[in-house]
Amino acid sequence: MQEKILELLEDRKYGEIAALVKDMNPADAAAMLQELPEARMPVVFRLLPKELAAETFAYMEGDAQELLIQGFTDKELDEVMEEMFLDDAVDMIEEMPANVVKKILRHVDADTRKMINQVLNYPKDSAGSIMTMEYVDLKRRMTVEQAFERIRATALDSETVYTCYVTDSRRKLEGVITVRELLMAPKDAVLMDIMETNVKFVTTHTDQEEAARLLSKYDFLALPVVDAEERLVGIVTVDDAIDVIQEETTEDMEMMAAISPSDRPYLKTGVFTTWKQRVPWLLLLMISATFTSTIIASYEGALAASVVLTGFIPMLMDTGGNAGSQSSITVIRGLSLGEIRYRDVPRLVGKELCVAVLCGLSLAAANFIKLMLVDRVTLPVAAVVSLTLVCVVLVSNFVGSVLPVLAKRIGFDPAVMASPFITTIVDAVALIIYFNIAKLLLGI
Amino acid sequence: MQEKILELLEDRKYGEIAALVKDMNPADAAAMLQELPEARMPVVFRLLPKELAAETFAYMEGDAQELLIQGFTDKELDEVMEEMFLDDAVDMIEEMPANVVKKILRHVDADTRKMINQVLNYPKDSAGSIMTMEYVDLKRRMTVEQAFERIRATALDSETVYTCYVTDSRRKLEGVITVRELLMAPKDAVLMDIMETNVKFVTTHTDQEEAARLLSKYDFLALPVVDAEERLVGIVTVDDAIDVIQEETTEDMEMMAAISPSDRPYLKTGVFTTWKQRVPWLLLLMISATFTSTIIASYEGALAASVVLTGFIPMLMDTGGNAGSQSSITVIRGLSLGEIRYRDVPRLVGKELCVAVLCGLSLAAANFIKLMLVDRVTLPVAAVVSLTLVCVVLVSNFVGSVLPVLAKRIGFDPAVMASPFITTIVDAVALIIYFNIAKLLLGI
Repeated sequence: MQEKILELLEDRKYGEIAALVKDMNPADAAAMLQELPEARMPVVFRLLPKELAAETFAYMEGDAQELLIQGFTDKELDEVMEEMFLDDAVDMIEEMPANVVKKILRHVDADTRKMINQVLNYPKDSAGSIMTMEYVDLKRRMTVEQAFERIRATALDSETVYTCYVTDSRRKLEGVITVRELLMAPKDAVLMDIMETNVKFVTTHTDQEEAARLLSKYDFLALPVVDAEERLVGIVTVDDAIDVIQEETTEDMEMMAAISPSDRPYLKTGVFTTWKQRVPWLLLLMISATFTSTIIASYEGALAASVVLTGFIPMLMDTGGNAGSQSSITVIRGLSLGEIRYRDVPRLVGKELCVAVLCGLSLAAANFIKLMLVDRVTLPVAAVVSLTLVCVVLVSNFVGSVLPVLAKRIGFDPAVMASPFITTIVDAVALIIYFNIAKLLLGI
Repeated sequence: MQEKILELLEDRKYGEIAALVKDMNPADAAAMLQELPEARMPVVFRLLPKELAAETFAYMEGDAQELLIQGFTDKELDEVMEEMFLDDAVDMIEEMPANVVKKILRHVDADTRKMINQVLNYPKDSAGSIMTMEYVDLKRRMTVEQAFERIRATALDSETVYTCYVTDSRRKLEGVITVRELLMAPKDAVLMDIMETNVKFVTTHTDQEEAARLLSKYDFLALPVVDAEERLVGIVTVDDAIDVIQEETTEDMEMMAAISPSDRPYLKTGVFTTWKQRVPWLLLLMISATFTSTIIASYEGALAASVVLTGFIPMLMDTGGNAGSQSSITVIRGLSLGEIRYRDVPRLVGKELCVAVLCGLSLAAANFIKLMLVDRVTLPVAAVVSLTLVCVVLVSNFVGSVLPVLAKRIGFDPAVMASPFITTIVDAVALIIYFNIAKLLLGI
């Protein structure tokens, strides 16, 4: 597609390009434009039909949007801003440098400007910051027919029309009704008789992750957002909820791998930014790892007495780290899906310890056989290593399951307690257990 | 809530319970019922109004559903199955033992039974296996008014009415139109003039993850599924797409932590099942870790000549593992979000190596200072350790970024190449680099 278009551009066959792109889906058009060389992209963008151009713009990434805005005439910017939904506009503005923001805000009407500023003021990652204020609001005394009139009148400017909210004169949320229910109801039915009054909602300060979780739990297409006085101020739609879920997952995975989270896609991030995301954690973990060296050094006597013990250190440390990260990731994921609650913690730890005993014994047995038959070490050494394995897995599963819960309790993201952190703790504990069992059984 | 209900049950105040639960949201009612003791749950379920009961049933987990079905009268089962959407019914049937499935299938009509069997036959994790066949289909010559009539007629049995599909007499997909567009169009407009003909679709055998990705990319509420002859056979709805995204993420995270994926929530899985999910990986990784012991053993001479080197082994191995898992998780997530494609791989590896040089130099510098000032080792030893650090981070980032891509290329899930696997490889490589640099610089 891109090559075909570049060829046509070369030959100045603009009409053919216009014919080629006029029926594209906006998401596809955005992807295609972003693959074009920067100098060519605005040319092709201008060949899109007006409405498609505006929709496509909303799907583009920040740097491409900035490039286009820099070159837009006043009229073009007006057209694009006119079509754009409020939440998309806010997303875009958040990524733009100040001079571009100024240019944009000059081209929206006073009402929209006020709304944009309001949304920009909500805390990052709150429901308020991702909501849109463009929804359909109805009144309780409307008939179904009047409701449809109102929906038709506001449909162009509403992000979703399928879930409508019934509010009183002070914008307090009274009920919710879907277009499906309206379609099924007689034309002269009055909303207050057919609307659902048990409305689920979040406040502007609710965490966006919680809002997404509720949307998914109740299979809603939109969730209303109210302010401190319980007045309806906006809605969060299901497509934004999916984006939030994906973003938060990426963040969790990054934290699990000891990377400071970033909002930008990997390939758009510069080498220095990526370095800054990663090196503090590597440094921190490197310094903690030197404690293990200190531990090894302090047992130098024991090691000198039985040199064969050194060889098993990596295996014991790795196994502890692996078992710990199995537990911690299970718990972190359970917490983030809401499957594990605080009151489940005793059951959780109990289960992890049972699993640890089973896993520990299986590993110890396999290891014992290998030590005796393959490595041909003495029975006491095999016993030390196998016994240590059982203890290490027990400790690892305990640490791995308890730390994420503790982190959440004191207000941290449980994901920071994932493998790298736990590995470091478990390493140290594994060595101490190992050398003490060795001292005890081998009498060194 | 639960305690209040249990109290009322004790006093046989069934009327009060019914009043309490009659306006509950079905998802909340399901959660509440599942917290009740098994013996009491069916009693309270029967106090729900008929329609709410059926909806609530669809939100319950497999074991609770099974318990209820075992006790249902024929009439009750009829009512529940009548209300249930096809995809929910299939989800349920997949988890039931054979005798319960038989009982269920006796209570659905022949058409539904045929559809259920068809969906059950699609491969696990395919779009066909999660689709529903209950959608609104329209014909191209219908007017908007006729379309609304058809929507009203089928609304009760359709999972979503908001996206309607236009098919020809052989069920071939010709177009798509949303209720929003229908509401905005004049009543006498003909569908073929206003429908979108550039329809995005998947086939029954498309991976469910790909279907969910498309739904999210295009911000759709539903995505049509066609068979090999391009006939429309079903739709995937956005709520199912969210479930798929969550499931696949859990699976990725489990694989990253070296756990065989499972479909059941953690707290519902028995200790033995969890043990079976985890122990094969621990065993495999333990055995690979013994290679590190072999490597250490084979350099025993070098170690004996410079005992101080032993103490830095854990730090070097840990840092390699951490750097490798940073790279691998970044790449795995990028692949699964579709942000990284095969043709991006050279750029990706290039960037990882640049980041590795920066991170490696930073760590080496910090470490060198610490070695000279705190540990007071000799200059050559400090040089060996610092130089090894740089090399280890380089190798780790390379392995961490390339292996997941290779895994995907040969048809594996990239997530299997996450930290535990990479740690094991990197450990071995780190040791070999360490000892060889030591030999070279220290002349041992």
